Amino acid sequence: MKSELDALMQAKNLDAFVVFGHAENNPPMTYLTGGGHVTHATIIKKRGEEPIYFFGDMERDEAAKSGLKLIPYSKYDAAELWKKSNHDGALAAALRLESMFRDAGVTTGRVGVYGFYDLSAIFGMLSHVQTLIPEIEFVGEAREDSIFMHAMETKDESEANRIRKMGRITTEVVDKVKDFLTACDVREDEVLLKEDGTPLTVGDVHSKIRLWVAERGAELPSGFIFAIGRDAGVPHSSGNPTDLMRLGQTIVFDIYPAEAGGGYYYDFTRTWSLGYATPEAQELFDQVKEIYDQLNSNFDLNAPFRNYQQMTCEYFEARGHQTLLHTKAPVEGYVHSLGHGVGLNIHERPFSNLMNGDDHRLAPGVVVTSEPGLYYPEKGMGFRIEDTYWVRPDGKMEILADYPYDFVLPMKKWKK
Amino acid sequence: MKSELDALMQAKNLDAFVVFGHAENNPPMTYLTGGGHVTHATIIKKRGEEPIYFFGDMERDEAAKSGLKLIPYSKYDAAELWKKSNHDGALAAALRLESMFRDAGVTTGRVGVYGFYDLSAIFGMLSHVQTLIPEIEFVGEAREDSIFMHAMETKDESEANRIRKMGRITTEVVDKVKDFLTACDVREDEVLLKEDGTPLTVGDVHSKIRLWVAERGAELPSGFIFAIGRDAGVPHSSGNPTDLMRLGQTIVFDIYPAEAGGGYYYDFTRTWSLGYATPEAQELFDQVKEIYDQLNSNFDLNAPFRNYQQMTCEYFEARGHQTLLHTKAPVEGYVHSLGHGVGLNIHERPFSNLMNGDDHRLAPGVVVTSEPGLYYPEKGMGFRIEDTYWVRPDGKMEILADYPYDFVLPMKKWKK
Repeated sequence: MKSELDALMQAKNLDAFVVFGHAENNPPMTYLTGGGHVTHATIIKKRGEEPIYFFGDMERDEAAKSGLKLIPYSKYDAAELWKKSNHDGALAAALRLESMFRDAGVTTGRVGVYGFYDLSAIFGMLSHVQTLIPEIEFVGEAREDSIFMHAMETKDESEANRIRKMGRITTEVVDKVKDFLTACDVREDEVLLKEDGTPLTVGDVHSKIRLWVAERGAELPSGFIFAIGRDAGVPHSSGNPTDLMRLGQTIVFDIYPAEAGGGYYYDFTRTWSLGYATPEAQELFDQVKEIYDQLNSNFDLNAPFRNYQQMTCEYFEARGHQTLLHTKAPVEGYVHSLGHGVGLNIHERPFSNLMNGDDHRLAPGVVVTSEPGLYYPEKGMGFRIEDTYWVRPDGKMEILADYPYDFVLPMKKWKK
Repeated sequence: MKSELDALMQAKNLDAFVVFGHAENNPPMTYLTGGGHVTHATIIKKRGEEPIYFFGDMERDEAAKSGLKLIPYSKYDAAELWKKSNHDGALAAALRLESMFRDAGVTTGRVGVYGFYDLSAIFGMLSHVQTLIPEIEFVGEAREDSIFMHAMETKDESEANRIRKMGRITTEVVDKVKDFLTACDVREDEVLLKEDGTPLTVGDVHSKIRLWVAERGAELPSGFIFAIGRDAGVPHSSGNPTDLMRLGQTIVFDIYPAEAGGGYYYDFTRTWSLGYATPEAQELFDQVKEIYDQLNSNFDLNAPFRNYQQMTCEYFEARGHQTLLHTKAPVEGYVHSLGHGVGLNIHERPFSNLMNGDDHRLAPGVVVTSEPGLYYPEKGMGFRIEDTYWVRPDGKMEILADYPYDFVLPMKKWKK
């Protein structure tokens, strides 16, 4: 929770932090400001004090929405800084940042550096600031262990509600895709047809998905997955736009829409086979569904997340599949880990990797995915089932959006 | 151009560079790889050698599309690194990066750091690498002066074509918005109505814009602007979603769609007044249009971009408006600079600020906006006209998408 930030700073021995970048698509900044169209903002927070939000004057209305203490960049005379820096952009930026630190009362100690932004510009600027205020030590943190990742790890009711709303939008879109696909005409060679009689491609379906998400006011990162056949067997292949949609092939459909402007995500996957499934595909799907259900009835409050990755690997290895438990970087079998936290980052704490510590737990407030899968690109098939869960304050695991798990989707105008 | 990178590295005395982050929405990475769904990639390039693309195994198909020399992260044993680092994530990442640098033959010299990514994680990791390979010096650059900003500054025909295509999509969407607005019914108090008879809001129009951009397969950053009245007078206000659409008020409509996945942008603004305009608004609009046209007929090949900012400020000051020429951070009048380069970054070189050097020029190959405007939030009005131009290899300035400049849009079902 955001209220933990001061305690987390103390635990990490940070006297202050600075966050750079846009207010959108920049989780630490969005977390502190609530978002808004602020394109080059800076936040400086001294431990135990309120954050100060520095912003460009043209964006004053957007910045004001944050409710934070505000200082416009115009307070610092750009022409004078430019002159003083001898027309060195990195130094001019550093001189301004020096004044901002002094205005925030930060002149000594360990200062954490955060934000998603231009590494080169910030690296260059901070090298200069280091010389201008030598008593400050700038500090980075391992991504998975930063104060923001820790604060963001547990969600309150209002955050869970925002994720739940994205879940509703997600399942609405998934259902529209299902209705659209199953209503298609089918050619003799089992290729699906569009209304104009030409073959339906994966790219056509991608367009529909983008459109239906946009209609609902959400954003869809372009790496979402709707892949068929071999591409479904490569976990992060987005799907080849020119592939034709066919009956009896596995489709992996993994989407993770977010609130517009880089807000909270939802993460969701279903695997389908249109019209019918091959016996081999049905068997593999049934295994994925079986372990998915077993996990679901075994999730325990406060248990280490990696325990469920262990359980999943053992289940799959017992059935002859490679997993990360005994194979390094497998390319077939169960090739990834079970899940991850979801929030303002699509991947955040807790993580389920086998080597993670006990601090990655199913603690009250975490929002996590459970997503076992099997991948056989050479056989032209892949499978994954994924839902997003909230561990409620009362310790119950709640799926944030319900949706059926059917593998074979009957076609409305086609029978075997 | 990309082919200039080695020469730019030499000029900046860089022996190598490293780029971190996703392949999407990360201009230096997109520039080198062509994009694709690669979520945590690294590129290392030694001067004079081909770049090496390090990627996660699950994303091998996407990485392969780049045509670059590939090394999967799985080459570096994660479990061993984790053990060796004593379970310190930043150190484990640094140990891997150390091996990657050694594999790329980079063990000494000045190494530029680039990419849009998690500042904290990279800062933490590089501090460790600095200790592991002390002969390397990591270097940042001022954003506007980096080797990537310089290389990207000039576009070839194929890049111009991609921007032109986004321009076509942009003007199609703008035209749909125009048709939609002018077809609305109008209430007695001059409020526009939706088909269901309720008032049309700015938020409704935002939704339409998002939808129509998505339908065309492009992405629209959520900070796009469609604002009316007072909000039109604040240059970067996105527009208040609950504002009602009314006749006779100025509307600033500024959109900058990009190719899906964070590709090339187009940047465009028109100002409208529905049904009629007040005489004061008409006069201010006419001034903006007049200087817009004057600029257009004065653009000279290779002239410093700031000359046109100077010309615009002088034009507006002669008519009694505040500008950056003699006012620091004006909040009304002409409050911004004339334009900026457009490419994989919505704002890139060349820039038109008065204090910029002669190196920000209208050189062959640059793509720039021209966007004079006037802003009077207290009067409830704002104005801006913006098009995106390519300076062709033959030195001609070409508007990449034509669209009419009409200020007053007649309503189809309403007359004064």
